[in-house]
Amino acid sequence: MPKPKALITTVPFADKNRLPLEQLESAGVDYTINPLGRRLTEGELAEMAVDCDVLIAGTEPITARVLERAKRLKLISRVGIGLDSVDLLAAEQRGIQVSYTPDAPAPAVAELTVALMLSLLRSVHVANLQLHNGRWQRHCGRRIAEVTVGIIGAGRIGARVLRRIPAFGTPRVLVNDINPDLKLVPELKLDWVGKEEIYRQADLISLHVPLTAHTKNMIRRDHLLQMKPDALLINCSRGGIVNEHDLAEVMRAGHLGGAAIDVFEHEPYTGELTGIERCLLTAHMGSMSVDCRVRMEIEATEEAVRFLTGQPLRSPVPADEYGVQREALPKGV
Amino acid sequence: MPKPKALITTVPFADKNRLPLEQLESAGVDYTINPLGRRLTEGELAEMAVDCDVLIAGTEPITARVLERAKRLKLISRVGIGLDSVDLLAAEQRGIQVSYTPDAPAPAVAELTVALMLSLLRSVHVANLQLHNGRWQRHCGRRIAEVTVGIIGAGRIGARVLRRIPAFGTPRVLVNDINPDLKLVPELKLDWVGKEEIYRQADLISLHVPLTAHTKNMIRRDHLLQMKPDALLINCSRGGIVNEHDLAEVMRAGHLGGAAIDVFEHEPYTGELTGIERCLLTAHMGSMSVDCRVRMEIEATEEAVRFLTGQPLRSPVPADEYGVQREALPKGV
Repeated sequence: MPKPKALITTVPFADKNRLPLEQLESAGVDYTINPLGRRLTEGELAEMAVDCDVLIAGTEPITARVLERAKRLKLISRVGIGLDSVDLLAAEQRGIQVSYTPDAPAPAVAELTVALMLSLLRSVHVANLQLHNGRWQRHCGRRIAEVTVGIIGAGRIGARVLRRIPAFGTPRVLVNDINPDLKLVPELKLDWVGKEEIYRQADLISLHVPLTAHTKNMIRRDHLLQMKPDALLINCSRGGIVNEHDLAEVMRAGHLGGAAIDVFEHEPYTGELTGIERCLLTAHMGSMSVDCRVRMEIEATEEAVRFLTGQPLRSPVPADEYGVQREALPKGV
Repeated sequence: MPKPKALITTVPFADKNRLPLEQLESAGVDYTINPLGRRLTEGELAEMAVDCDVLIAGTEPITARVLERAKRLKLISRVGIGLDSVDLLAAEQRGIQVSYTPDAPAPAVAELTVALMLSLLRSVHVANLQLHNGRWQRHCGRRIAEVTVGIIGAGRIGARVLRRIPAFGTPRVLVNDINPDLKLVPELKLDWVGKEEIYRQADLISLHVPLTAHTKNMIRRDHLLQMKPDALLINCSRGGIVNEHDLAEVMRAGHLGGAAIDVFEHEPYTGELTGIERCLLTAHMGSMSVDCRVRMEIEATEEAVRFLTGQPLRSPVPADEYGVQREALPKGV
């Protein structure tokens, strides 16, 4: 019997810890790691996935067109939590299972978010750019305890961000979530409010929602203009949730005190936000801490091995994620 | 009787909150704010301070030469905590009292330190410089809980930094202080060790010591080379504690994973560290949060008013600070 084949598309993979590769080897799996060293396009993926049984996947587009050609594919094991890149309904139709690693990235994303919050509040990024360009300017900022914090999305990551805040004092905190958890972070007095109230009242707004039909382009020009002139906006969730062009336009016009953007509609990003000094830009690094990457890779690999050795999956994507994509279909489909 | 005169040298002053100026006005004090908008040189200060009764002072050099000319001066009220800029012994000789605001800046400095820790750990500063220069590179970093943290100086600021750490997990923490407080931050298991052990073992080293004869040039080439090749170094205390030239030299040679420097031997700083991408530079912004600046300004002004209205000082500089400067004198003086 030929060995089962796994295609690993997320890169880098196993460069800090070889364990995932050893797990595949000892399970007798024949694996290939994405040789291009960057996120694959739909066409490249369709080409490479043609004979694999399992896909250990990053955020490349796993579309109906890709699945159509991947005749042997039986499992998509996502290294990470976001499912916006996977056509779940097309997978379901073809009997392809999908698993993910929903908890592994959260500590790293939450910690990066706090890093960006503190940097924005004190203009660390602006001072650093200026000093590297020969300019010395002392910026006066604010401490986290002195501002109104607004968190949109209080799930795995948003909740972790909230839990790290009381170490810095007790700011006013506005939270929005479709399922408010009224017992979350008892050390903070959380106000559960609508998104519009956060746009209007918060000094520091951070987004922790998945990319779905509901959240795509959620923050456009009008929403940005509702924010305080010196508000600070953070997006460590998914590109496309904040309209990048609108953000660049209002910031160039002097609106907003700053923004920190880690995720972009098209990555690698080289767009117009790079021309704005008070825009703090990072390269989709939310989950990029050694421990969380290793944990994500091991969990996704273990899921692939479980599947290939006939054991039940531990983190199949739950039904409501399929529901989200089903809802987004045009009516009547 | 002529109004008493106050010279305010620290700038900006009262730009976020006018209260300190109102306090001076209602106490009948005639004040002048440093018209140059930057730190004064010794010569400029000597000129301006010639007829003032009280100096509300920043970090400009308050030397014997300055005090010699300031015949009417009776109080130096420092806006801040550092006393390295004040010749305490020369002041004492002339019967000039000195007060300071030791607690006010601490929350802002501690919060900036955590900002710099998190940025260094995740290469936020490098990614931001790269993206603003058209380069996209995903950096893999470490979470605070995964590294060994080394804190040198566990006084007002170092202790506050330590108290903010457990929100991010419980790393191994090495601490050095001349007076170890064994009950500090019980949530962390603190190892009180010598400085050399911190240099050799810590992944993330942060300095929170005053500038004295003992700490000047405390970290030179040899100490830097004892550190791990990927160690991260933070100085938010005082310029001159880390030898800047040695730091630039070892970093250019590839040693250290990064450094965050907020304070410099000569400010404004335009030196060679500005050419090093993984060196995160800020412009002496430790105390620069609106609330802490306002508190420092109000406390220093209240001290001046108390003095001028015959009330006892609340924060006179304690005797051991004079002792530190006395010890530093050449033997036999």
